Amino acid sequence: MTKTDYDLVIIGAGPAGLTAGIYAARARMNVLLLEKAVPGGQILVTDWIENYPGFPEGISGYDLSEKMKIQAEELGLKIETAEVHSLNLSKELKEIILKDRSITTKSLIIASGASPRNIGIGEDKFMGKGVSFCATCDAPFFRDKTVVAIGGGDTAVQEAIFLTKFAKKVYLIHRRDELRATKILQERAFKNKKLEIIWDSVATGLEGFFGVEGVKVKNVKTNEEKTLKADGCFIWIGILPNTSFLNDAVKTDEFGFISVDTTMQASVPGVYAAGDVRDTPLRQISTAVGDAAIAAVSAEHFIENL
Amino acid sequence: MTKTDYDLVIIGAGPAGLTAGIYAARARMNVLLLEKAVPGGQILVTDWIENYPGFPEGISGYDLSEKMKIQAEELGLKIETAEVHSLNLSKELKEIILKDRSITTKSLIIASGASPRNIGIGEDKFMGKGVSFCATCDAPFFRDKTVVAIGGGDTAVQEAIFLTKFAKKVYLIHRRDELRATKILQERAFKNKKLEIIWDSVATGLEGFFGVEGVKVKNVKTNEEKTLKADGCFIWIGILPNTSFLNDAVKTDEFGFISVDTTMQASVPGVYAAGDVRDTPLRQISTAVGDAAIAAVSAEHFIENL
Repeated sequence: MTKTDYDLVIIGAGPAGLTAGIYAARARMNVLLLEKAVPGGQILVTDWIENYPGFPEGISGYDLSEKMKIQAEELGLKIETAEVHSLNLSKELKEIILKDRSITTKSLIIASGASPRNIGIGEDKFMGKGVSFCATCDAPFFRDKTVVAIGGGDTAVQEAIFLTKFAKKVYLIHRRDELRATKILQERAFKNKKLEIIWDSVATGLEGFFGVEGVKVKNVKTNEEKTLKADGCFIWIGILPNTSFLNDAVKTDEFGFISVDTTMQASVPGVYAAGDVRDTPLRQISTAVGDAAIAAVSAEHFIENL
Repeated sequence: MTKTDYDLVIIGAGPAGLTAGIYAARARMNVLLLEKAVPGGQILVTDWIENYPGFPEGISGYDLSEKMKIQAEELGLKIETAEVHSLNLSKELKEIILKDRSITTKSLIIASGASPRNIGIGEDKFMGKGVSFCATCDAPFFRDKTVVAIGGGDTAVQEAIFLTKFAKKVYLIHRRDELRATKILQERAFKNKKLEIIWDSVATGLEGFFGVEGVKVKNVKTNEEKTLKADGCFIWIGILPNTSFLNDAVKTDEFGFISVDTTMQASVPGVYAAGDVRDTPLRQISTAVGDAAIAAVSAEHFIENL
């Protein structure tokens, strides 16, 4: 086939992108990783990680991403800071359009991650300091504490119930006078003595100095405002794939996450997705790492068979 | 539902089982992990691991499995040494039959791993000392060395070609006078100058003191024997799931690996499989860890909705 700049280009340097890089570099592929900001992805704003296997004492998000980055670079991975503008995947030779130039590649792994939808109550300031978007990740850090949870869908209610296993008190703030979650979850929520639902309300701000100390809440019917004293705030109002460059280059599910088969291949041969950006049932470092190993080996086999 | 001994039982303490244990214990599930031998699984016989993300200097299989085990136990996981004899999954309450008793559980994660098929040339003695079953894992350790590869199917030929990226010379030993691999792979193998196919031959023994130094080879037509000097021996004559206890309790693929959906659920609700024992496209620590996180969170949701 036509000569390309690279065998493989990886978009994104979170755990998925770096793992794909580790595998591809180690397999001696001609590979480039593009990251628009700094390597690490969402784990950079993760204060402490207890559930990535291999670190019995836990590890900070920063340290873990540094370790992964060093490992990838020592194996020969080239990481470049550049934002992907768009993709042209209609031909066998895949084109990646950056701001100032375009590069060609035989295969592509999209590992650009996802971002929690923001409410805009200053949650950025408290990331890893009391604000969390993942109960599976962070609930155990709130043992015997008081937390506020925001949302009303299945995830929010399920995760709020999960939080009651740890926290002594969980407030669930919901903007309407009934939940959207399935009946069985609602029943369980209503029966749970540690869980109090604050109806018809929205969060309007976060209070605290070093970390979250309280959540400001406004009743949308009465306009009454109050502050709930809390050590943490879990926000589940949705997660969005980081795919501004994607347009319709590959198929996605209804929420915009990239659809893949069991080999992590997207709807275009030679294009793979791994980690939070794909249509996965769980978004964890562990799963990102697993996806990415599969994607990299699949890309390697794809190129061998061109 | 009826009271059970456990919410979740995990079978196997390799990376998949320990990761499932980390997630389940951290979610405060009433969980037990059963391991018939010592925790670690196949990674115990893995000398050095370079591609599990988070360890830039690499880590020995023993150390990594110790770290995972300590992490799981510190989070509260109970590990018991016991061999599973059989399963009774026909009722809602799942029964696990051990040698001396049976235990009941609401959900089950099978993470019992897989074992490479043995040729019986003393490969056990050289595990992690020159004998390998995984080129993706170990090929980079044989840079500019000579290696012998055994097998003739797609995997063997593909992996032998991959080895030539690192080794200066690769002998592929095949018992017939033609390969079973697909045509395109065969053509590539024949063109590869570093790859020499030893036809009509079988390996009959390994030589070496601290590690592999040579592989004894017999021509099955002429009965002639010779020793190929080599630093390593890769064996790809198949991998078998460790499922002697399974009978037909859940559906498997044609090779006996457990079939799962995207949530890692097997054909019986509440029963999951993770890692090498499932029908996965890749068998790595990274993928075992990813599968297991999904399986554990799926089991947790399953129980919450009982």
